[in-house]
Amino acid sequence: MSKRSQEIVNRLKGLGDSIISDIDAGKNPSLDIRMRALNNVYFDEQSGIIKLGNDQQKRFYFNLGQAKKFLQTLLIAKQIKILLEQDKPALSIRQLFYTLKHDIPGAGENTFDVQDESDPLIEDVELMVDALREELNLIATPNGVLAGPMIVEDKTGDVLDFTKMGSAGGAVPPIVEDDFFHIKEMNADYILVVEKYAVWNLLNQEKFWKKNNCILLTGKGQPARAERRLLARFGEEYDIPVYVFTDMDPWGYYIYSVYKYGSINLAFFSEKAACPRAKYLGLSVKDVMNFDMPRSSWIKLNDEDHKRIAEISEYPWFKKDYWQKELTDLKKFGYKIEQDALVSKSIEFTANNYLPTKIENKDFFD
Amino acid sequence: MSKRSQEIVNRLKGLGDSIISDIDAGKNPSLDIRMRALNNVYFDEQSGIIKLGNDQQKRFYFNLGQAKKFLQTLLIAKQIKILLEQDKPALSIRQLFYTLKHDIPGAGENTFDVQDESDPLIEDVELMVDALREELNLIATPNGVLAGPMIVEDKTGDVLDFTKMGSAGGAVPPIVEDDFFHIKEMNADYILVVEKYAVWNLLNQEKFWKKNNCILLTGKGQPARAERRLLARFGEEYDIPVYVFTDMDPWGYYIYSVYKYGSINLAFFSEKAACPRAKYLGLSVKDVMNFDMPRSSWIKLNDEDHKRIAEISEYPWFKKDYWQKELTDLKKFGYKIEQDALVSKSIEFTANNYLPTKIENKDFFD
Repeated sequence: MSKRSQEIVNRLKGLGDSIISDIDAGKNPSLDIRMRALNNVYFDEQSGIIKLGNDQQKRFYFNLGQAKKFLQTLLIAKQIKILLEQDKPALSIRQLFYTLKHDIPGAGENTFDVQDESDPLIEDVELMVDALREELNLIATPNGVLAGPMIVEDKTGDVLDFTKMGSAGGAVPPIVEDDFFHIKEMNADYILVVEKYAVWNLLNQEKFWKKNNCILLTGKGQPARAERRLLARFGEEYDIPVYVFTDMDPWGYYIYSVYKYGSINLAFFSEKAACPRAKYLGLSVKDVMNFDMPRSSWIKLNDEDHKRIAEISEYPWFKKDYWQKELTDLKKFGYKIEQDALVSKSIEFTANNYLPTKIENKDFFD
Repeated sequence: MSKRSQEIVNRLKGLGDSIISDIDAGKNPSLDIRMRALNNVYFDEQSGIIKLGNDQQKRFYFNLGQAKKFLQTLLIAKQIKILLEQDKPALSIRQLFYTLKHDIPGAGENTFDVQDESDPLIEDVELMVDALREELNLIATPNGVLAGPMIVEDKTGDVLDFTKMGSAGGAVPPIVEDDFFHIKEMNADYILVVEKYAVWNLLNQEKFWKKNNCILLTGKGQPARAERRLLARFGEEYDIPVYVFTDMDPWGYYIYSVYKYGSINLAFFSEKAACPRAKYLGLSVKDVMNFDMPRSSWIKLNDEDHKRIAEISEYPWFKKDYWQKELTDLKKFGYKIEQDALVSKSIEFTANNYLPTKIENKDFFD
C-alpha cells in the first residue's frame, strides 16, 4: 500500500471509529455529508478555481428516510477500505457498484438496485476522506493522448518516453497520481492543450512538440477526469506556461474554462483538477482579422450557440473584462470558427504560423 | 511516397485521364459511382463478411442535377492526389472539407457549403480507386488501447513494445496500415478483444496479457475504424485465435458482429476491416448457469433491448443456429448481464476463472 493509500485507509477507519463512538455513547450514529448542491459551489477569485463550500448535512442511521443511504454509504466506505488494504486493482464506479449489489438475506431488499444510488455516495466518501476518487482506486475512462519531452515511471515499472510514442502518442492512463504516473523528467518549455484530436494529430505528425519543445496534449473535446488532473499536475509541478487552444465558439471557451477553473458538477474534483495558470490561446474573434481567416471558414452562430453564449456570460469565471468583450465580439461577429478550419489557410498554417505567432506575441488571455 | 500511395496516385491520374478522353471524344464526361445504398449491400456467406455489391451509377458533368457533385468529386480526388504526392500529413475528413471549401469567383457559389456534401463524395473516391480512406491519408479519431507481446515499427521510426506501455496501454493510432504501423514481432498466442474499457483496464492491471501471452485490445464500446482495421490485420496476418468478449445483450452481440463481419453503413470498409475468424467468447446465456452469476447481477431487458433483439435476429449474419438460439434464450431469460458484472463474483474472477475456463473448454461460438 502506498503512503497515500495508508492515509486514506486511516481516515476510513476513523470514520468507522466515530460511528462506534456514537453507538457506545447511546447516540444516533451519523455521518457528516458535505453538500454538493449548486448553492454550495462558488468561484474562488483568489485561487481562480471553482470550489465546493463547507455546508454540511448529517446523515443519520435512525431516520427512516436516511437509514438505507446510511447503510449504503458505510458499505461503500468499507469496500473501498478493503480494496485499498488488499492492494486490489482499480475499478470503475460501475464495477464497484457490482461488487456491492447483492440481496440482504431475509430483508427482501438489495443493498443497491441501480448505480444511480452508489455514484453520489462514492462522492460523499471522497469528501469525507478528502481524497480524489482515483486515490480511492476508482477510475473513469480516460480519452486523451499526449507527446513531448517527458519521461514517466509508471506504477507498472515501465518507463515511458513521450518522445517515442509513435503516431498514436502516449495514452493518458486512468490514474495520473504521482504514485501511478511518476514524472521523472520534464524537459518541455510549455504545455499546449488542443481541444480536438484531428488538430492534435496534425500537430503530432508535424512533430510540433519536437520543433517547439513542448508537451502536446488533447482530451478529445470535453476532457475526462484524467486529462484534467494531469494538466493540473503540470500546472502545479512545473513552472512553465500552459496554453489551451480551442474552437472559437462558446463550447470551445467552456472547454478552456474546465481545464483552467474546473466545473460546477465536479466542484470537489475541480479543486484538484484545475489549472488556474492556463492561458487561452484562441481562436478568438480578433484572430479572424489578424490571421485573415477566409470567409468560407466562418460558420453562422445558431440558436444553441447564442443560448450557450448567454449562459457562459453569466458564469462568474467569465466575468473578466476581456472574456465579456470576447463573448460580445463573438455575438456581434455572428460566426464561429473551428480550430480545424485553420487548414483552409494551409495545412502547415497551424503549426508554422498561427501557434508560433500567438505565443511569440504573447497574444493570449487569462 | 510509399508504393501504395504511388499506386493510388496513379489510379487518381487514370480517373482524370478518362475524363479528358471523354472530352476529347466529344462525350459527356462521366464518373462511375459504386452504389452504397442498402440494396447494394449483402452478406457474403462464403467469406463471412458484409460486402458492397457491384451496382454502379454514372455521374455526368452535363446534367443539371449532377454537375455540382461531379465538380465536387473531382475537387476531392484532386486534393487527395496533391496531398499524397506532397506527402502531407493525414487530415480528418472535416479538415479536408475545410481545405476545399471556398467561394467560386464570379459564381456566387461555394465549392462546398457543409461537410455533409463532401463526406459521401470521399467515399465515392475511396471506391473509385479501391482504397481505404486511411490509404488516402484521411483519418477518423481512434479510441482503442492495447497491450501484449507485440513490437511495432511506427511510421515515425519509433519502435513500440506493447509489453512496456504502462498502465495506459498503447494507444491505437489513426492509421494502422502496414506502412504506418509495421508489426515487426507478434508473439501472442491469441488476441482478446474486450468491449469495455473498465474491463480491459482491470485485465491490464492484472497483467492478464502477460500471464496468458495474448494481445488485449479494447475499442471502448462500439469500435472506431482504426480498431476494426487493426483486428482485421491481426486476423489476416497471424494464425492465432481471435476472441471477442462483450456484454450479454443485443448491443454486445452487435459489437462482436461489427468486429467479425463488418457493418452495413460502412460495407466497403467492412470488406477490409472484418475479422471473420473471430469467435464469441460470451457472455452468453448459458454462462449465467455455468458460472453461477448471482441474481443481483441480472438486469431486466427493457423495451429497447427487446426491439434490438428482434432487429438483429433478422440480420443474415445472425441467422446461424446458435445465434438464433442465443437470441431466443436471452429473450426467454428476460435479463441482460454486463461483462463488468463478473466482478460481483470476485475481482479476480474475470481473469482467473471466466476467461481461462471459456478458452480452455473451447466454450465459444462463431
